[in-house]
Amino acid sequence: MDALEAIMTRRSAREYAARPVPAGTAEHLLAAAMQAPFAGNEEPWHFIIIDDPRILDSIPAISPYAEVHTPAPLAILVCADLQPPKGAGFTVQNCAAATENLLLAAHALGFGAAWTAVYPDPDRMLGFANLFSLPEAVAPFALVTIGYPAARPPPVDRYREDRVHRNVW
Amino acid sequence: MDALEAIMTRRSAREYAARPVPAGTAEHLLAAAMQAPFAGNEEPWHFIIIDDPRILDSIPAISPYAEVHTPAPLAILVCADLQPPKGAGFTVQNCAAATENLLLAAHALGFGAAWTAVYPDPDRMLGFANLFSLPEAVAPFALVTIGYPAARPPPVDRYREDRVHRNVW
Repeated sequence: MDALEAIMTRRSAREYAARPVPAGTAEHLLAAAMQAPFAGNEEPWHFIIIDDPRILDSIPAISPYAEVHTPAPLAILVCADLQPPKGAGFTVQNCAAATENLLLAAHALGFGAAWTAVYPDPDRMLGFANLFSLPEAVAPFALVTIGYPAARPPPVDRYREDRVHRNVW
Repeated sequence: MDALEAIMTRRSAREYAARPVPAGTAEHLLAAAMQAPFAGNEEPWHFIIIDDPRILDSIPAISPYAEVHTPAPLAILVCADLQPPKGAGFTVQNCAAATENLLLAAHALGFGAAWTAVYPDPDRMLGFANLFSLPEAVAPFALVTIGYPAARPPPVDRYREDRVHRNVW
């Protein structure tokens, strides 16, 4: 898929088809995620690939917004390193850029995907930290569910001229 | 350009050619930026297109990291709405996703671009807030410089297997 087309037509998946994704899908998407820019010398992210059905089933209890997107055959928990060598000031934005790459790659490859925010919601963060016994310096940032979409939402033009300024506010 | 190719080969521009970008480039890129996902009902972003050479020349004094990328014929200041209707908890990550879309679109269209972090650096934030007399509820988030690249940095594979976990940390 053309890059501009991927960006302009990507929508959040709402429902997944009951169909597994091919082996290697998560790694393929993570290669795209890790191409996002980051500040400093060290990538401030970790990723947990979730394809164990028992774990996938336990997620809606932690993150209610994820429920509308289930059942998904695959999810990726994007995690933020809170102690990177140059400080964590840019960690959230770096992880967000990686998550956006992941969503675009999924769409371009014919999958549907949806970004469920975790950080900075304290309940969801605690839920995922407990579920995976995350180290203290690692924060769950976002849950991305992935699968073949049951339906493809039509593209929506989100351009807002009132948000665009030129040389002056 | 293919979407996966765009994601996998995008690099930060280091030097721009002395060549203007076509009229409408900024709006084209902003249409891509605004397709990023956001939480809540209201997009939490504003964008200032900067193509006035006098303003472009004043930027390195505010953001020293931008200096290595100048002279760029175009820059876009991504700004964050700190008072969106549903709260600002997700504003930084939403603006980061929009910025990543902007970078990918620039690369796919043959431009070079570089993301200079502004938020949460207090000096840079104050400098841009003063330069554009931003409203109090609007924070400068990132400066993206854009132009034709003087050289294209070769792709780098940033996949790190040690950052990938499966079902357990």
